[in-house]
Amino acid sequence: MKKYVIGIDLGGTKISTALSTLEGKIIKNVVIPTNAQDGEVAVLNRMIGTIENVLVQANATKNDVHAIGIGSPGPLDSNKGIIITTPNLPFKNCNVVQPIKDKFNIPVYLDNDANVAAIGEFMFGAGKGKENIVYFTVSTGVGGGVILNGNIYRGNTCNALEIGHITLDPNGPRCNCGNLGCLEALSSGTAIGKRGSEAVSTNVETSLRKYDKVTSYEVFKEAEAGDEVSKDIVDNALNYLGIGVANAVAIFDPQMVIIGGGVTQVGDKLFNRVREVVNKRCFKNMAESCEIVPAGLGINAGVVGAVALAILESGKND
Amino acid sequence: MKKYVIGIDLGGTKISTALSTLEGKIIKNVVIPTNAQDGEVAVLNRMIGTIENVLVQANATKNDVHAIGIGSPGPLDSNKGIIITTPNLPFKNCNVVQPIKDKFNIPVYLDNDANVAAIGEFMFGAGKGKENIVYFTVSTGVGGGVILNGNIYRGNTCNALEIGHITLDPNGPRCNCGNLGCLEALSSGTAIGKRGSEAVSTNVETSLRKYDKVTSYEVFKEAEAGDEVSKDIVDNALNYLGIGVANAVAIFDPQMVIIGGGVTQVGDKLFNRVREVVNKRCFKNMAESCEIVPAGLGINAGVVGAVALAILESGKND
Repeated sequence: MKKYVIGIDLGGTKISTALSTLEGKIIKNVVIPTNAQDGEVAVLNRMIGTIENVLVQANATKNDVHAIGIGSPGPLDSNKGIIITTPNLPFKNCNVVQPIKDKFNIPVYLDNDANVAAIGEFMFGAGKGKENIVYFTVSTGVGGGVILNGNIYRGNTCNALEIGHITLDPNGPRCNCGNLGCLEALSSGTAIGKRGSEAVSTNVETSLRKYDKVTSYEVFKEAEAGDEVSKDIVDNALNYLGIGVANAVAIFDPQMVIIGGGVTQVGDKLFNRVREVVNKRCFKNMAESCEIVPAGLGINAGVVGAVALAILESGKND
Repeated sequence: MKKYVIGIDLGGTKISTALSTLEGKIIKNVVIPTNAQDGEVAVLNRMIGTIENVLVQANATKNDVHAIGIGSPGPLDSNKGIIITTPNLPFKNCNVVQPIKDKFNIPVYLDNDANVAAIGEFMFGAGKGKENIVYFTVSTGVGGGVILNGNIYRGNTCNALEIGHITLDPNGPRCNCGNLGCLEALSSGTAIGKRGSEAVSTNVETSLRKYDKVTSYEVFKEAEAGDEVSKDIVDNALNYLGIGVANAVAIFDPQMVIIGGGVTQVGDKLFNRVREVVNKRCFKNMAESCEIVPAGLGINAGVVGAVALAILESGKND
């Protein structure tokens, strides 16, 4: 009986692979360095090695495994199983699904980090029991994923929910993507740090000046300590994050918006501000019917999400 | 054999009811005044009367009919079959589906104008053969509907795709909904007319001054004739419409964006500007893979959409 799935969280630094029950209970987890510099074949073989490794450790065989899910940085093509390109991995237009499928003769599914996180939250995290969920991740960049009627929605070219690149201020700061005023250019950790550095480069009075290097961490810290410039920067970034969430509420009419990523470590301050903006900008019944909550999965979110991907996708094919 | 469906386009002025084949070929169409002032029961009875009327005219009976679709202004609750409220119809939290279902013993489906138009375009209009379509309607207001993986997506409270109320300029003009800088407040026909009237109320030199009343029609006309103020107003509104469409592309990664509604009568000028903004603001592969086209259904879009709703929803239950 196929009682397990395997999830692989493929990162630029490490590969984390878990054997899990169909209910998401992790039986064994193996973490090894990616060694991305060794190239495509080596990294693929390391991924395969972790699969063999968790099976051995759990005293299981490939015949016990229903499906394998892989979460990877994008852009990638989930339908074709191809990683198109990503800064910290050696894969270029590389099919990572087929070799693993060939090796184990098990269905293998690939999706990007944000979608995998959304699926993880939907199946085992803050969104358990909900059918329509928008997931935001706010860290160095801003990304997202969406569960609609109980399924991940990927779009035509597997690029849906490029929510970090919706325009919220047509004349706002330049984004890394080239556009002006993207959510990511206004609300990401990188953006917050950048606004802090810009402030230091002027004559404005700010306690940020004492740092050699200003990142979002220092800006949040000094805002907490009462520095007016830092408080302005944080408030501005959270206001735009609130507008981004409000736009997602107007578009998806979801039951829940889940926000994860490093920037959410500031906690209530972020969620309170986002809720305030959503209440101000959205239709009352839509705002009231939508919960806005922190991600529920912690440090293992990546591998739990990959497990959830395997369960969700293999369930579809049953 | 159930070879027909019936579509009802319920409007504040008229009720248009059509008997159609399952392929969307309209056999008979009856149009009568709504007489909204006569109240809920009277209007419901008039709707029922049109159903009986098309059946008699087509020499058919209710046993020939697979399903009935109703398109109505919103807000409404498709799941419950309830029209919540609408300015030009007498219904207040009124179930319009149940009495018709009871009368004919046929499945009856209700949806809002924008969703019905999206379904119509998907099944019989510009979006035929596509699976992921975002539909915008730009007239006095801005609304929308979305087809995802071949199905209409309605959201948690049946209010998905309130695309007219996404914020595109946090400090922009006040929208009727109360929010600042909504797409509708920037790009609707009403907004364009308002900017024209505002211009006339100042000392700026503009040929709009010759009109007693300025609506979007006069602004488009004078822009065409070379009036700089009108040209600015039009360009600004179409730029924001382009940003709204670009945001929908970033979020849905659709195969096609269809734009309908009165404002699209200006034609190429609108579509060229929208495409230009999408190309500028979206990721290249997403912009290139998404067609942006005018609505394909003409004057009968409402009733064709209602027919399409009946076909789509009854097909789901087969």
